[in-house]
Amino acid sequence: MANLPTLSIQLPSDASGSAAIVEAVALQLREGRLPSGCRLPPVRVLAHQLGFSKNTVQAAYDELAAQGLTESRGRKGVFVKAEVPASSAEPALPDFWPGFAPRPKGLLPLSSVMIDPQLLPAEQLTTCFRAVLDNPGMLPDYEPQGYLPLREAIAERLDLRGIQTSAEEVIITLGAQQALDITCRALKNKRIATESPAYAIGKRLFEMSGVESCGLPIDPFRRVPMDVWRSRLEAFKPAMLYLTTNFQNPTGYSYTTSELMELAEFSQQLGFGIIEDDWGSDMLSFSEFRPPLRALVGTSVLYMNSFTKKLLPSLRLGFLVADKRLVPSLVGAKRVSALGNPILPEMALHEFLARGHYDRHLQKLQPELDRRYQRALELLAELMPDWVRWTRPGGGPLIWLNFPDQIDLEALGGRLSNKGVGITLDTERFFETPHLHGFPLGFAYLTSERLERGLRVLAEELKKGN
Amino acid sequence: MANLPTLSIQLPSDASGSAAIVEAVALQLREGRLPSGCRLPPVRVLAHQLGFSKNTVQAAYDELAAQGLTESRGRKGVFVKAEVPASSAEPALPDFWPGFAPRPKGLLPLSSVMIDPQLLPAEQLTTCFRAVLDNPGMLPDYEPQGYLPLREAIAERLDLRGIQTSAEEVIITLGAQQALDITCRALKNKRIATESPAYAIGKRLFEMSGVESCGLPIDPFRRVPMDVWRSRLEAFKPAMLYLTTNFQNPTGYSYTTSELMELAEFSQQLGFGIIEDDWGSDMLSFSEFRPPLRALVGTSVLYMNSFTKKLLPSLRLGFLVADKRLVPSLVGAKRVSALGNPILPEMALHEFLARGHYDRHLQKLQPELDRRYQRALELLAELMPDWVRWTRPGGGPLIWLNFPDQIDLEALGGRLSNKGVGITLDTERFFETPHLHGFPLGFAYLTSERLERGLRVLAEELKKGN
Repeated sequence: MANLPTLSIQLPSDASGSAAIVEAVALQLREGRLPSGCRLPPVRVLAHQLGFSKNTVQAAYDELAAQGLTESRGRKGVFVKAEVPASSAEPALPDFWPGFAPRPKGLLPLSSVMIDPQLLPAEQLTTCFRAVLDNPGMLPDYEPQGYLPLREAIAERLDLRGIQTSAEEVIITLGAQQALDITCRALKNKRIATESPAYAIGKRLFEMSGVESCGLPIDPFRRVPMDVWRSRLEAFKPAMLYLTTNFQNPTGYSYTTSELMELAEFSQQLGFGIIEDDWGSDMLSFSEFRPPLRALVGTSVLYMNSFTKKLLPSLRLGFLVADKRLVPSLVGAKRVSALGNPILPEMALHEFLARGHYDRHLQKLQPELDRRYQRALELLAELMPDWVRWTRPGGGPLIWLNFPDQIDLEALGGRLSNKGVGITLDTERFFETPHLHGFPLGFAYLTSERLERGLRVLAEELKKGN
Repeated sequence: MANLPTLSIQLPSDASGSAAIVEAVALQLREGRLPSGCRLPPVRVLAHQLGFSKNTVQAAYDELAAQGLTESRGRKGVFVKAEVPASSAEPALPDFWPGFAPRPKGLLPLSSVMIDPQLLPAEQLTTCFRAVLDNPGMLPDYEPQGYLPLREAIAERLDLRGIQTSAEEVIITLGAQQALDITCRALKNKRIATESPAYAIGKRLFEMSGVESCGLPIDPFRRVPMDVWRSRLEAFKPAMLYLTTNFQNPTGYSYTTSELMELAEFSQQLGFGIIEDDWGSDMLSFSEFRPPLRALVGTSVLYMNSFTKKLLPSLRLGFLVADKRLVPSLVGAKRVSALGNPILPEMALHEFLARGHYDRHLQKLQPELDRRYQRALELLAELMPDWVRWTRPGGGPLIWLNFPDQIDLEALGGRLSNKGVGITLDTERFFETPHLHGFPLGFAYLTSERLERGLRVLAEELKKGN
């Protein structure tokens, strides 16, 4: 329809008169780089774009034709006459990081870290979106730090988890992922230590962002090996330590208060900062009795959390709480990554919190997650061979299943996949040779029936042996 | 309310019985790191979280009290007895990049790159949000690459600009900023060349992301100095060249077809890729007659554009069109930065396009932008001293005003600010000593009256001299 290619003609800003147009077109023709079959813009279009009169442009087009540089093809327009060899000036393709391996679809996902969408309050959220569209209505601008009333509501709610803060310390993010991203971005000395096995997309973020990272081994069946951690931290000298303090993904491990305090001591002695990812806490009944590090030692802990999994993943809403001194830098980092986020979901979430929907939602959600957790423990006890070990994390979406070394997990994953069951075997989560031999069981995503079906298939395949 | 600090107690997953709880608490006490005044979780809470019976937990609490480790304070709960010195284990604050300088508020913004929100279709967008909330309703999941029907609609529309593509090559982003960000992220060899003066937040993105960058001087009063560019590109060896091909921010410069083709030739000879930022094109009447580089030389150009400024900034919607081979990597980069974006704005924009609102909006918007552009040129001719020069970009939101070197721009900016007028003087946009001496005039943001008011204040201050 647009009949491209058309020649784009720009003039020096002090040029005027038809001679300037003739010169500009002739110049481009002389360079011999135009795509073949190139035509000139219609007279009225070029006149409009250059701010010249149509007569001036027409005079230039007449002159170009008289010089034999162009030819008119009637209603089709005025075409460049030069026989230019078709250009093949295609730019190089840059060298990019590989993408994520695609996940097979249609499998029963036995390792999902998500909550069953059937348990999520899509309907109340819809009502809240409608309400904010009515009042206050669409706002023209985003707020780089996030919608102020939402930041106020979050600061107020954090009091329940023992965190004293205010709206000016809260930054709204696209889930916890953007919170981690802008922290990496704001960091001058990009060196971060984290758990091994790590939150996979966090580890990938470090790799793709030029962040040097170091893994600290975690074993969900044991306490944190503080001696190993300390010597690695001393040697690596991170700028920050990234910890998932409740229900670490993928191990499901949660830290004791004493472990958290010891890590805070290390951080003070060795001079690194701490990022506390508390994404799992709302998935725990009575989570107010499990104090986050930010509540224990104060504002210098960067605290992040997310509503994403607990509300509706498609909303992409999380937040970061940072010491006042760091906020301008983090908001600057958010601006360079996206300028700001869409404001309407932030407004709807504020409405959702203000109407008390979130608390009511958690009151219904947590007992159901508890039931699914208990059911998972029952099924494991009933179905697994006695050489399979599993954790008892007390809540959250993940139980870690561990197997004797002679079990070939890749082969097991393939056989399960053939039977329609998917597990997440991601050895790239480890920084070294894996010290665990298993995968997470995501009980929050599956109904009792689907969980049982998946575990029965797993048990059958395990009994068959390698 | 939550009466923190509470002690978080975790047990090895094979532990059972009250002795295990006693041991775990005693261990934390012996380490002497607990916050002072720490209490134990209520019996029913710990029983729930560990999956033990209340009797087991109660027996453990009795034993801890008998050992003199804890004391009951009636209804207040069970407290740790040890007199622990108050911990001051506050982590270090990491070294962060500085934030952006805050912009003074309440000034008449003479350099804004935005479009007047009065011209934007907030009402039709609201209708579209309501429509998608009704049908198909809130979707639980985001799509990492973006909402498929929107990607299809964008691919179809790009045909108007001569770009043949398909939904699988389109990635939805938070404005052009996220498109640029994920490109940097995906790049292995992080070296990018761009115009100087540069798009400021793009340059800042490079700095904060470990991207080495190189500036190529651009002068909106002249053609691109290709000799200078070529020798810099040869010396710097970028992985990519980032170009704003229409209405470069801040100079307002647009490239001729011949310049674009010459840069494509360089890119092929020197082995770099090209990112084409076409954000300005829809601000131009008859933009279909100004071919983007992506239309001229094919799929290896990374093309980005944005609806943000033209529709409603708070929506944050833009996109990237990439060669199929690069899409998995770019989607991977989007996942590490935010997992994905909120899907509802993407659905509403799809509805907006499908109803034909966008085309009708542009039909109204473009003539108004043309009027504002013409009015700006008239006012400049009428009001500016004859030693002020300005460009005639033919459209877009920006005219570049340039001044003799003896004008002290910082002082001028200060005096204008005192009179309530704001200009953007950002020498950090240049990679070297600035070769231009001026600032952009943003005519699209201001009504004729406000534009005249701002320019009259500017003219007065200029007449006063330094």
